[in-house]
Amino acid sequence: MATPGYHDDKAAILARLRRIEGQVRGLQRMVDDESYCIDVLTQVSAVTRALQSVAVQMMDEHLRHCVANAVQSDDAEEADRILGEAMKTIERLVKS
Amino acid sequence: MATPGYHDDKAAILARLRRIEGQVRGLQRMVDDESYCIDVLTQVSAVTRALQSVAVQMMDEHLRHCVANAVQSDDAEEADRILGEAMKTIERLVKS
Amino acid sequence: MATPGYHDDKAAILARLRRIEGQVRGLQRMVDDESYCIDVLTQVSAVTRALQSVAVQMMDEHLRHCVANAVQSDDAEEADRILGEAMKTIERLVKS
Amino acid sequence: MATPGYHDDKAAILARLRRIEGQVRGLQRMVDDESYCIDVLTQVSAVTRALQSVAVQMMDEHLRHCVANAVQSDDAEEADRILGEAMKTIERLVKS
Repeated sequence: MATPGYHDDKAAILARLRRIEGQVRGLQRMVDDESYCIDVLTQVSAVTRALQSVAVQMMDEHLRHCVANAVQSDDAEEADRILGEAMKTIERLVKS
Repeated sequence: MATPGYHDDKAAILARLRRIEGQVRGLQRMVDDESYCIDVLTQVSAVTRALQSVAVQMMDEHLRHCVANAVQSDDAEEADRILGEAMKTIERLVKS
Repeated sequence: MATPGYHDDKAAILARLRRIEGQVRGLQRMVDDESYCIDVLTQVSAVTRALQSVAVQMMDEHLRHCVANAVQSDDAEEADRILGEAMKTIERLVKS
Repeated sequence: MATPGYHDDKAAILARLRRIEGQVRGLQRMVDDESYCIDVLTQVSAVTRALQSVAVQMMDEHLRHCVANAVQSDDAEEADRILGEAMKTIERLVKS
């Protein structure tokens, strides 16, 4: 597994995750300042959506690279395994 | 709005948010090390669920304190406003 | 438990549920006609969102009537039970 | 688009959708009988989860057949289009 599907977008994904880390620290400041519950909860929803967007981008690249490569190879068993693994992950994202 | 509903659990919520911040930093390390897409995505789902659990705890305390106080007061209009505000936030959590 | 919170909106909620039933029958026709997967899935998302909207409306009325009544009563234990029950249901909606 | 990805499982998917139709009719009976809000909402969550499971099964077959075929073909542009279309649908499922 030399190169993950997101290899070419690594910098962009790291930038998104650093922004999310900043948002989580912002949540801590809000709670520490005893901000109003609803304002904190609105911000929690924003962080959840930001995380979902990172997940969607990574899954996109996983399908376009890792899954596509497995499907194009001659190893039908491996392609089947990779597709099943991707679907389990999609299911986890859909149901959370 | 002197005291938010989560006032008595502030320390516990801050501890949860610090753990989530650590998880987001862990995600950055995984991406920086070019970990396998599926392993990163599994961890993204775990962080999303941890954020949802914080949201559920904060909403619980908001209902038990802020909403309950508004409902018990004589100000029916304010109670109505607070209930509508809580429902909009619940809707945002349900649909994200 | 004489009157549920949605009592005054019963006709509107029944109309929404009948529309959802029609959408589910529409899904069966699409599958029977072997419609393209993506078209069926787009429609499944629409039905899911319609169900979430019914859930949000019912929860709104549950908070405004059943929960508000329990909170306004003198029975603190019952109010506590009703609030806990509402939160469990909200959590189930948020995490599904 | 002669054959959708779910072609071989059409009967099973139709059976699931008929069961979901029955659950939605059951919801109408519950509301008509003025069942307790929380009992109706618990059942709404069950129907939502049943719909998500149908969506996951259809997406699984879409990836294994339609997307895999497009990726294995020589038409890189079509493969790209099909992958983008699948991801948009996955995103809609994840965010709803």
